[in-house]
Amino acid sequence: MPKYPDFAERVDRVPASVFEKFRPKMKEKGPVLIHLHIGDTYMPPAYELPMDAAFLKKRPYFNRYCNTFGVERFRRVLVEKLSEDNGFSVNVDNLLATSGATNALSASVMTLLNPGNEILVLTPCWPFFPGMVKLADAKVVEVPFYVKLYEKPELNIDEYLQSHLTQRTAAIYLNTPNNPSGKVLNQNQLNSLARFARQNHLWIISDEAYDGLLFDGRKNISIATLPGMFGQTISIFTFSKSFMFSGLRLGYLVGDHQLVQSVNKTMVHQLYSPSTLSQYMMVEPVKQRHTWIPGLCRQYQDLRDMFCEKMKVKVQSPEGTYFLFFPIEEYLAGRDYWEVIDAFLEEGVSVAPGGDFGADFDHYIRICFTGEPPERLEKAIERLNSVLLLK
Amino acid sequence: MPKYPDFAERVDRVPASVFEKFRPKMKEKGPVLIHLHIGDTYMPPAYELPMDAAFLKKRPYFNRYCNTFGVERFRRVLVEKLSEDNGFSVNVDNLLATSGATNALSASVMTLLNPGNEILVLTPCWPFFPGMVKLADAKVVEVPFYVKLYEKPELNIDEYLQSHLTQRTAAIYLNTPNNPSGKVLNQNQLNSLARFARQNHLWIISDEAYDGLLFDGRKNISIATLPGMFGQTISIFTFSKSFMFSGLRLGYLVGDHQLVQSVNKTMVHQLYSPSTLSQYMMVEPVKQRHTWIPGLCRQYQDLRDMFCEKMKVKVQSPEGTYFLFFPIEEYLAGRDYWEVIDAFLEEGVSVAPGGDFGADFDHYIRICFTGEPPERLEKAIERLNSVLLLK
Repeated sequence: MPKYPDFAERVDRVPASVFEKFRPKMKEKGPVLIHLHIGDTYMPPAYELPMDAAFLKKRPYFNRYCNTFGVERFRRVLVEKLSEDNGFSVNVDNLLATSGATNALSASVMTLLNPGNEILVLTPCWPFFPGMVKLADAKVVEVPFYVKLYEKPELNIDEYLQSHLTQRTAAIYLNTPNNPSGKVLNQNQLNSLARFARQNHLWIISDEAYDGLLFDGRKNISIATLPGMFGQTISIFTFSKSFMFSGLRLGYLVGDHQLVQSVNKTMVHQLYSPSTLSQYMMVEPVKQRHTWIPGLCRQYQDLRDMFCEKMKVKVQSPEGTYFLFFPIEEYLAGRDYWEVIDAFLEEGVSVAPGGDFGADFDHYIRICFTGEPPERLEKAIERLNSVLLLK
Repeated sequence: MPKYPDFAERVDRVPASVFEKFRPKMKEKGPVLIHLHIGDTYMPPAYELPMDAAFLKKRPYFNRYCNTFGVERFRRVLVEKLSEDNGFSVNVDNLLATSGATNALSASVMTLLNPGNEILVLTPCWPFFPGMVKLADAKVVEVPFYVKLYEKPELNIDEYLQSHLTQRTAAIYLNTPNNPSGKVLNQNQLNSLARFARQNHLWIISDEAYDGLLFDGRKNISIATLPGMFGQTISIFTFSKSFMFSGLRLGYLVGDHQLVQSVNKTMVHQLYSPSTLSQYMMVEPVKQRHTWIPGLCRQYQDLRDMFCEKMKVKVQSPEGTYFLFFPIEEYLAGRDYWEVIDAFLEEGVSVAPGGDFGADFDHYIRICFTGEPPERLEKAIERLNSVLLLK
C-alpha cells in the first residue's frame, strides 16, 4: 500500500498539464513570445465592475460563506438569463453555482460515473476532461465527432455512436460550441444525439462554456431544452468566456433538482462553495449582457475573419469560440510535427498541440485568436505562415 | 452499471450537508434565529479591500487565468509570511494557491490516498473531511484525540496511535488549532506525533485553517517545521478564518516541490486554479497582517471569555479557533439529545450537533462565538442557558 513517499496511483493516470514540456522554452522567450496556446482573451471585461465601498456596504455578507448552492440573488438573475437566452424553464432549485465550468464538470463526473463506467467523449475535446474521468476511475472512450460534422453534416449519428457503445457506457460528454474546433451543433444533430441518449439511458454532460460566443448570427441550442432531455442532462456554463472573466473562476450548472443536490454534495467536498463576492460581482453584468455581448462577438468575429484570411493554411472558419483548429501535416516539408511546434516557439508563437485534444488530432494545432492584442496577432500570423513555409 | 437515472455509488457514501435536516425549521424561524452552528465571523474584514479602478488598471491581467500554481506575487508574499509567522524556509515552488482550505484538503486526499487506504482522522474533526476520504474510496479511522489531550496532556501518543495502525494506514489528518474543540497542540505533543509519522512512513495532512486565531499569547507550531517532517507533510492554510474572508474561497498549501506538483495535477482537474482577482486582493492584507490580526484576536478572545463566563455549563475554554465544544448530557433532564437541539432552534438559536464531528461526540454541541454581533450573542447565551435549565 502506498505510504510516504508514494502518491496515490490515480495521480499517475492523469496526464500532466498540457504545456508543461514547453515551459522552459516559453520562459526563455520572455515577452517576445505571443501566447496563442491559451484559451483566454486579451481584453479586460467589456463591462464595469461594480466594486466600491458603497457596493460592499450594501452587501454586508460579501466576506462570508454563502449557501453552498450559490447566492440566491445571483441564481435568480441566472434563471432569467437561462429563460431569455437559452430556452430553459427552471427555477433557482435547478441551479448550482460552481468555481468555473471546470469545477462543474469535475463534480458532475464524480457524481455520475462509477469506477469502470465508460463515457463517450466526443472529440476533439478540451484536454482536462479526460483527466477528470480518470480521477474518477472511469474510462474515456474517444469518439471523433466535431471535425467530422464539418465534413459530413448529415452523419448518421445514431449508427455512428452505436458502434462505440458497450454495457458499461453511462454518459456522453458533449461540448457545443466546441473547443477546439469551433463547431456549433445544429438542431438536427442535437435531436439525433438526444434520441440516442434517451434510447440508451445515457447521462449527457453538456459543456456550454462557449455559450454566447457565436458568429454569423448563430444561436446556441442547449440539448437539455429538447423534448424529454432535461432530466438526463447537466448543462454547464461559465463566466470565463463570453463574460471575459476566467480569472474569477465562476460558473454554474443546471439540472433536475435531485441531480443538482447530488452534484452539490460532491462539490461541497471539493471546495465548499464558489466565492460569495464573485457572485455578487456578476449580478449586474448578467443583467446588462445584451448591451455588450453582441459587440464583443462582432469584435471576435472580425479577429476570426482576419485570421482565416491572413493565415495561408486550409482552415475551417469556426462557428463559435475563439479558436482555429487545423491539420498542419501538408506543411511539414519533411520535418517532424514536433520540430514544427518547436519552430513556432523559436519564432515566438506558442500554439496548442492537437494531440492533447484527442488521439485522432496529433497532426493538428489549435490557435486562440483572442489571446493577444490585434497588432501582436498580426505579427503571430506572419511568423506562423513563415514557419509553415507559406509566403 | 449505473446509467440514467442512477448516480455514482460514491454519492451515497458521502454524508449529506450537516445542517440539511434543520433547514426547514431554520427557515421558518427567520431573522429571530441566532446562527451559532456556523464557522464564520459576523464582522467585515478588519482591513481595507484595495479594489478600485486604479487598482485594477495596475493589474491588467486581473480577469485572466493565472498560473495554476497561483499568482507569483501572491505566492511571494506568502513565502515571507510563512517564514516570519510559521518558521517555514520555503520558496514559491513549495506553494500552491487553492480555492480555500477545503479545496486544498480535497486535492491532498485525492493525491495521497489510494482506494482501500486508511487515514487516521484525529477527532473531533471538521465534518467535511471524512466525506472527502469517502469520495476518494479510502477509509476513515476515527481516533478520539483533541478532547483527550485537554484531559490528559501527557498522553502517550505513540502507544495510543499505534493501536489504530494497520498495514493499510497511509496518512494522519491533523488539525491544530482544532475545529471544533479549540485545542492547540503543544511542542511536545507535535514532536510525538511527528516521531510516530516518521517511524511509520505516514503522510501528514496538516489542516492549519485556524492559524493566527490563537488566544492567551499562544503560537501555532506547524508540524512540517519539526526536524525531518517537511517532506512528508502537506500544510494547509486559508483566508477564511484569521483573514475573515470565507466568502473569497482562497487558501494555499505548502509542501515539497514534487508533492505540490502532484497536488496541482489533481487540483487543475477539480477547478483549474483559484481566482486571479482574489489573489491580487489579498497581497496587501497579508503584508499588513501585523497591524490588524492581534486586535482581531483580542476581540475574539473577549467574546470567548464572555461566553465561557456567562454560559453556565462546564466548558473547556478554547485555546484557539472561535468555537466552544462541550457535552450537554448532564443538562438533558430526561430529554432526548435531539429534543434539546430542537428546543434550541425553537428558542431561536442554532447549534452544531456533536455527532457530526466524530462518533464519540454525539452528546456534544459546538457553538461559534463569532457568528453573530455581541448583542445577539448575549441573547443566545440566555436562550441556551434557559433550554439547558441553567438559571
